[in-house]
Amino acid sequence: MNYGLIRNILGKIILLVGILMSLPLFVSLYYKEPIRNTISFLIPMASLLLIGFLMSFFKAKNTSIMARDGFVIVGLSWLLMSLFGCIPFIISKEIPNFFDAFFEITSGFTTTGSTILSGEKIDSLSKSMLFWRSFSHWIGGMGILVFILAFIPESKDGTSVHILRAESTGPKVGKLVSKMQVTSRILYLIYMGLTGIMFITLLILPDKKMGIFDSLITTFGTAGTGGFSNHGASIGFYDPCVQYTVGIFMILFGVNFSIYYLILIGQFKEAFKSEELWWYLGLITLAIVIVSLNVMEVYNNAEEVFRHSFFQVASIISTTGFSTTDYGVWPALSCAVLMCLTFIGSCAGSTAGGLKVSRLAIITKTTINDIEKMISPRKVKIVRMNNKPLDNTVIHSVKTFATCYVVIIVFCTLLISIYNPNMELDPLTAFSSSLTCISNVGPGFGKVGPAYNFSGYSEFSKMVLSIEMIAGRLEIFPILLLFAPSTWKKRV
Amino acid sequence: MNYGLIRNILGKIILLVGILMSLPLFVSLYYKEPIRNTISFLIPMASLLLIGFLMSFFKAKNTSIMARDGFVIVGLSWLLMSLFGCIPFIISKEIPNFFDAFFEITSGFTTTGSTILSGEKIDSLSKSMLFWRSFSHWIGGMGILVFILAFIPESKDGTSVHILRAESTGPKVGKLVSKMQVTSRILYLIYMGLTGIMFITLLILPDKKMGIFDSLITTFGTAGTGGFSNHGASIGFYDPCVQYTVGIFMILFGVNFSIYYLILIGQFKEAFKSEELWWYLGLITLAIVIVSLNVMEVYNNAEEVFRHSFFQVASIISTTGFSTTDYGVWPALSCAVLMCLTFIGSCAGSTAGGLKVSRLAIITKTTINDIEKMISPRKVKIVRMNNKPLDNTVIHSVKTFATCYVVIIVFCTLLISIYNPNMELDPLTAFSSSLTCISNVGPGFGKVGPAYNFSGYSEFSKMVLSIEMIAGRLEIFPILLLFAPSTWKKRV
Repeated sequence: MNYGLIRNILGKIILLVGILMSLPLFVSLYYKEPIRNTISFLIPMASLLLIGFLMSFFKAKNTSIMARDGFVIVGLSWLLMSLFGCIPFIISKEIPNFFDAFFEITSGFTTTGSTILSGEKIDSLSKSMLFWRSFSHWIGGMGILVFILAFIPESKDGTSVHILRAESTGPKVGKLVSKMQVTSRILYLIYMGLTGIMFITLLILPDKKMGIFDSLITTFGTAGTGGFSNHGASIGFYDPCVQYTVGIFMILFGVNFSIYYLILIGQFKEAFKSEELWWYLGLITLAIVIVSLNVMEVYNNAEEVFRHSFFQVASIISTTGFSTTDYGVWPALSCAVLMCLTFIGSCAGSTAGGLKVSRLAIITKTTINDIEKMISPRKVKIVRMNNKPLDNTVIHSVKTFATCYVVIIVFCTLLISIYNPNMELDPLTAFSSSLTCISNVGPGFGKVGPAYNFSGYSEFSKMVLSIEMIAGRLEIFPILLLFAPSTWKKRV
Repeated sequence: MNYGLIRNILGKIILLVGILMSLPLFVSLYYKEPIRNTISFLIPMASLLLIGFLMSFFKAKNTSIMARDGFVIVGLSWLLMSLFGCIPFIISKEIPNFFDAFFEITSGFTTTGSTILSGEKIDSLSKSMLFWRSFSHWIGGMGILVFILAFIPESKDGTSVHILRAESTGPKVGKLVSKMQVTSRILYLIYMGLTGIMFITLLILPDKKMGIFDSLITTFGTAGTGGFSNHGASIGFYDPCVQYTVGIFMILFGVNFSIYYLILIGQFKEAFKSEELWWYLGLITLAIVIVSLNVMEVYNNAEEVFRHSFFQVASIISTTGFSTTDYGVWPALSCAVLMCLTFIGSCAGSTAGGLKVSRLAIITKTTINDIEKMISPRKVKIVRMNNKPLDNTVIHSVKTFATCYVVIIVFCTLLISIYNPNMELDPLTAFSSSLTCISNVGPGFGKVGPAYNFSGYSEFSKMVLSIEMIAGRLEIFPILLLFAPSTWKKRV
């Protein structure tokens, strides 16, 4: 293990979190909030800058790492981010309990959007805290290490590859261009560009409730596919035109960003050859049709039926978790469809969570192929994706990932069911809490449905769910390896 | 496809179902039931004997088949058994609706034990119908084709292998002795022996409510790991001594029968080397401990806590589905544990359903191995089971099976959620119905919990669940292949 480099990179992360806190600090000054709020950001900022500076001052002698170190760096970074990120909530006393504050900011960074705050409480939160809470979605969406490696020079390409692979999502993480640093810079610029376009679009819309602050918060929640809103009613607070716009952008942020790159450099043919994109759009269309037919009698007119179906499907498959209606009371079929989408999630290489559509496609194709082989054992067929034969290592690792994913969902369901004195937990609530946290969606069903929140859970359960959110965001292995004893063994 | 042999074997199945109906016919005569009941068995019996005789009279010219034909024979046999088996219920008007009757007898043959009858209705059913309903568990437990191949000569060994593999459970179905026919004869004799021992034990017990008829019904339900009882209160109707006895026998019938064979021929060392057995006993112990601690406050004293925990864990992991208490109201943790056990099921080569413990063990071991490989890529380790290295083909097919299993559970959850006008379906009820049917357990949670039944579902949903039960009993592929167009294509 290259401890020198790990220290150095963690220092940079801490430094960056400190720098990023200047934005909510500015918000608290701009809105002339009480001095307590300003201090709540100033104190952690000063400490983070100092600690981060000390840790990253001495460069590591050896800058090459192995895959394992990449996982450890990413896992630790995300834990530290959440640990430091929750301090403003605690000092300001807006979320005084550590476990609540940790849950909330982890939910932010991991772009989950599950909250321990009630609707009224959200509406009464101060602007600076609301900003920090939602800004964390934007930071976590593309990944903070991707940011550091993209914009801070000096890192070796081999090192970057391991770290970026550990933080990015999907079964295969490749380079768009020959250098990894340039690749991550391109991805971040696309992310910033799309964010800007959405922000301006929301401002132009005729809904008067959508001012600069609301636009910013809503854009952060959408771009990171997070789902925190500054209103208890979520996007249901705004006019239908905003709901449609947010719906479309949620779908856009669930697309693999390399497709946008291909479009930008004019390779349209190559871009639309992506099978994952068509699976993704196909799933969305299918789900909207099923849900629309199923909730037909819940709403007054066809427009409402379509709007809520479209919005909720887009919100769940993109793992954002915004809502325009209490879909927790929808009929069982719609709930089951939404739970399937929670599990699946969006495209690899997007800001969204879940198992990822490409993995679903790979598993479906290989399984169908296996069944066909059973019927006619002599036919040899090769499973293809994007017209290229699928590598056996990829198929194998996708299956391992899916197995771990399911096992963790079940294991955490059991863990969070152990002890919750303030809540009569039912199996649906427990399972959907675990599922929604690992998939980074946000609301679940039952007592954690869109009209409720996670405050009823015990501190132990909140901690389990927080770690599950990070495991989901980092696609399990960086967190799993932190807990594996053999990771920390010395090797020759 | 060898249509001649398929016709011949299906004919034998029909003939055998006709012959087996003579037992409930005898029960109806013995208890001097109304003439309608006697006729209810006489009419289908006569028709089955005639049809079966005609179909099996002409021998097939060619008696060799391929794996695919084995699957088709088994799939069709089980559909036919249920179609003919439900006729007595309909004629006697005790279950007048076809879909209800089909659901009930399918649940019987597949040893599921889900019922569309309310508790009072069960208590008021006539003895001959109760007998037929529970006897179907015993027939389905070891498999009707296993019976035919065991005791009817003439079949070629190659042919038997394909059919027995398609009807038996577990990842690898091997021979105990060199001839397949002798193997299946041994298995059936062990099955009969254990059934006899249990029947006599129940008779000897001091509970006066346990007469000959009740002992017979309870033994059928336990031996087949089915779970139909002749009382609405299930095994809760009897004294604790009966509950403990049934609990122990449920666990025994969930053990791989080849272990009993090894014990019988004195190879104790070989028998207890089976890793699956230890996983199975370990899971049972772990689950009893967790559930006991969790339901501590639900009951008055330690004995009750232990008895209900022990009984319910034994009942669910053995996929029997008997109950002594309404565990549907237990806390979420216990419900989640029982749902995990529903998914897992018992050992391969037993009469129980579920994914099977050996498959769980294989998936767990290979997944842990994969994670270790990630941490230290240079270490090469071979996954072993029972001290033998695991074959890659077996690992691969286990993973394919598990994937199909999960996909079918989810797919059927969606299907049965579509249309149920008489029931307000919730996601927990829908999911647990699908899960309990494919695993052949019986009761689920929510509105299909142990205190309720499946009568609220629409006819369409009942049909879906019935087919899912058969798919679960036959481990998916025989039913899946019946629906695959390429199965029916001609080949050179």
